[in-house]
Formats: sequence, structure tokens, C-alpha cells
Amino acid sequence: MITSTSNARVKRLVNLKKKRKVREEEDVFLTEGIRMFREVPPELLKEVYVSESFYKKEGEVIRQVMKKGQAKLEELSDSVFQYASDTKTPQGILCVVKQKHYTLSEVAQGDSPLLMVLERLQDPGNLGTILRTAEGAGVTGIILSEDCVDLYNPKTIRSTMGSVYRMPFVYVPDLAKALEKLKEMGIKSYAAHLGGVHDYDEEDYVEPCAFLIGNEGNGLSDEIAGLADTYVKIPMEGQVESLNAAIAASVLMFEAARQRRKNV
Amino acid sequence: MITSTSNARVKRLVNLKKKRKVREEEDVFLTEGIRMFREVPPELLKEVYVSESFYKKEGEVIRQVMKKGQAKLEELSDSVFQYASDTKTPQGILCVVKQKHYTLSEVAQGDSPLLMVLERLQDPGNLGTILRTAEGAGVTGIILSEDCVDLYNPKTIRSTMGSVYRMPFVYVPDLAKALEKLKEMGIKSYAAHLGGVHDYDEEDYVEPCAFLIGNEGNGLSDEIAGLADTYVKIPMEGQVESLNAAIAASVLMFEAARQRRKNV
Repeated sequence: MITSTSNARVKRLVNLKKKRKVREEEDVFLTEGIRMFREVPPELLKEVYVSESFYKKEGEVIRQVMKKGQAKLEELSDSVFQYASDTKTPQGILCVVKQKHYTLSEVAQGDSPLLMVLERLQDPGNLGTILRTAEGAGVTGIILSEDCVDLYNPKTIRSTMGSVYRMPFVYVPDLAKALEKLKEMGIKSYAAHLGGVHDYDEEDYVEPCAFLIGNEGNGLSDEIAGLADTYVKIPMEGQVESLNAAIAASVLMFEAARQRRKNV
Repeated sequence: MITSTSNARVKRLVNLKKKRKVREEEDVFLTEGIRMFREVPPELLKEVYVSESFYKKEGEVIRQVMKKGQAKLEELSDSVFQYASDTKTPQGILCVVKQKHYTLSEVAQGDSPLLMVLERLQDPGNLGTILRTAEGAGVTGIILSEDCVDLYNPKTIRSTMGSVYRMPFVYVPDLAKALEKLKEMGIKSYAAHLGGVHDYDEEDYVEPCAFLIGNEGNGLSDEIAGLADTYVKIPMEGQVESLNAAIAASVLMFEAARQRRKNV
């Protein structure tokens, strides 16, 4: 059992928690909690860390789940676990998980792709919520501009509620080029935009399509908005100018899901 | 200009920021930022605090806006302002605003009420986002169980983006009784629930209606869910069991908005 916060392995965990660069170098990320542990695909699970008191209570369950894979288990004293954890009241289980990588073609493939294209999204919670909601709405893949917040940020991972393991996504260095490629593949793109002529529910999302969602404060850049095939507007009552990025994304995704259900 | 954090007025601001009880006793709340300042109804604005550097830059605009009301202005040194502020990088303007109170009847009135009923909502950001989205979707009022997070929490206020000034809401000591009253008023209630038979988009929300939204972790209590007229389900793809409370609320509110637009 590791009982000191100056232990090299503990320091590494803290670095993985805090630094995108370290996560990228090691090609892993951290997940916390028993639910996230249960949902890790066995082939991606590399290491499991448990707090002393959690292991006393749940040791049997943990060993059972870990039989399926090759991951290593390590026990930490409760105070060391708290130090390594990203939450105020940790459950007591933390996993080091291998990152998964997709190409743009893999993310955009399928009979009837429904894609989310995110430009410069900055809020980790928003991004995680979009992933979780996207899986629920039947979105088939997510494309992110390189300057979006890191999806492997612990706060983002937490708010995906496990969707991170299942939703294909890709960071692209040149979002404009990626949009061109979608166009070549016959995927129509829609930007939620104040300049939209039609309401968002007046377009047809049964065909292959992609929704463009912009930065929380500034929306889509003019360059990216200009590349959309169609502007749509989410009509607003009262004095509300815009919706939170995750909310706008959700309204669009569930309208697409609704249309696709009706069309079966 | 106040230059010390031990000044009694600064201590009071910190108490108003941190303590629901103090806000209730004084019947006020705090808002920060130039946008929230501009949107305060003049009759509710009681006091304005500005940082030295913000006042140097924006003094003219601030005095102009304040002409409309009776509020008092006070300058704080930048470091004292930072101490009183709830944000890491404050804009430099903070208002003490009078709370507004509505009765259940006032919140539920109107030709075709569209209400949100929130039970034990705990996340301040979720609550604020629901208020903002509700205004955008044309919701007419919000009813909260007494054990919901305080709407006057600074984080909630911030995420309302000003909707707090315009959206009627009421905390009720007995949510079951409030639901009975809605029933007497002819308002039909819908609970998003796994036990729903119909998809949420197969019900008619043009008539007076209310959506019941439960706690982030546990959903609606059996007691409150049992009082709903109808269960509806938001169909889910993949392995997603439920949506974030604010997302579920938004999907329902914008479906109601969509139906009401079509019906005009």
C-alpha cells in the first residue's frame, strides 16, 4: 500500500489529472468512481487504484471485474487517495485508461451519420454533457477543433457518465478542411445561428447531417459558420439571446432523434 | 473608497455571497458583471459596488444607468473587490438587488401556462441554466420544492444570464399540495420517467401543462412522480440511462415550444 503523497506513482497520477500534455504523452486518461470503473472496456483498462477503506468494502467486486483484463491493482491509504483524486469526496476507485483514437473517416462513417462539430468549446462540463446527451440522442460521432477543451480532462470524463468509452470522436487540426470532407461525403451541415431563416425544426435531419456548435461566449467563428450548408435558428421567447452551448446542442440533437424515430 | 477587507460593509457582502440565510434576512441577492447590472429592473437595484479600475473606465455608463433609480454607489479598491467577488476574474461591478416574491397563483396564472416543477434540484449551475432556457422556450413560471438549491446562489444567478429578473418562480413548502392546486387549475402535469409509455413528443403540450423534473442523482421521488397526470419517456439510444436534469428539462421545454409555435 502506498502511504506517502511524495511517492513517484502518486505524483504521476496527479500529473495525469492536471496536465493534458502528460495524458497525451502516456496516451491514457483517468476515470473515477465505481460506475466508470465498471464501464471501462476491459482491453482499455491499464491500472486501478483503490483507497484502503474502499478496497475493504468492495474488494471482491473489484477483483471480479478485473479478472476480465490485464490491469494492475494498487492500494493507496485514504489520505493519499484523496490527494490523487479530482473530487472532494472520492468514492475510492481511480482507473488509468488507454485513450482511443479515431480518424475523421471512422467518425463520419455509417449509413446515416448524425455528427456534432464543436468549435473552440471551452467548458469541460459542457463538453462532457454534450457527449452524454449525444449518445442518448443517437449521434454517431463528434468532431472537435483542436482548440476545444481536452475531452480527457477529469471533469469532462466525469460528466460524460461513461459515454466517452462509446462515442467516436476526433480532434482535427483544420476544422474548415474537415467540413469540406464532410461535404464530399454528402453530409449536410447546419449551424445554429442568429442569421438562420428557418426554425431548426423545419429542416430534414433524417439524411446524413452535422450540427455546428460554437464557443460558449462567442458562438461560431465567421469562417466556420460561413462553411455551413444551412443556418437554422432556435426561436427564442423573452429577452434570451442565446442558449448555453450544451443546451443548444441538445435541442438540435433531440430534434434530429425525433425526426429519425418518426421516419422508421 | 473602501480599501480594507475588514470593513463591515465588505464583510456583509461576503456574507450575502456565501449565506442563503443572510440573503433571506435582508431579502436581497448579489449579481455581478456589467450585463447583469444593465438588466436589473431599476426599482429592484439597491446598491452598486465598483472596483477602482472598472469605475475609472466605465464610470460614465454606470452613472447613466443609475440615474433611473435610487441605488447607492460605492467604490472598492481592486483587491477588496476581488475579495468580495464570487468570480476568479471579476469584471468589477457587483449589485445588491431586492428579491422578488411571487405566490403560487401568480406563477401559475395566464391563458396557457407552461410550468416547470423542480424537486430537490441540487446543482446551482443546472438551476440557473434551466431558468435561462425556460425563458427562451416561453415557460411562464417555475415551482421549486423547498429543498432545491437556492436560486439566489451567486453561481445560479450567473448562469441565469438575467432571466432571474424576468421569470416568475416560487419555492413551496409542500410540493404535493402545489401539484394538487395545479390540477384544480386545469394544468396537466407530465413526469419524465422510465415508466413512461408514450415518448415525450407524442403528448399535447399546447394546453396548460407542467413538467416535473427531479433531483440530479435520484430523479423524482416516488411520491411526486405518483402525482403526475402522465409519465412520458425521453427515448435513449446507446447505453445512456438518463440525461442531465437541465438537458432533460430543455428537451421537454423546447418540444412544448415547438408544438405551441405550430399551433398559432
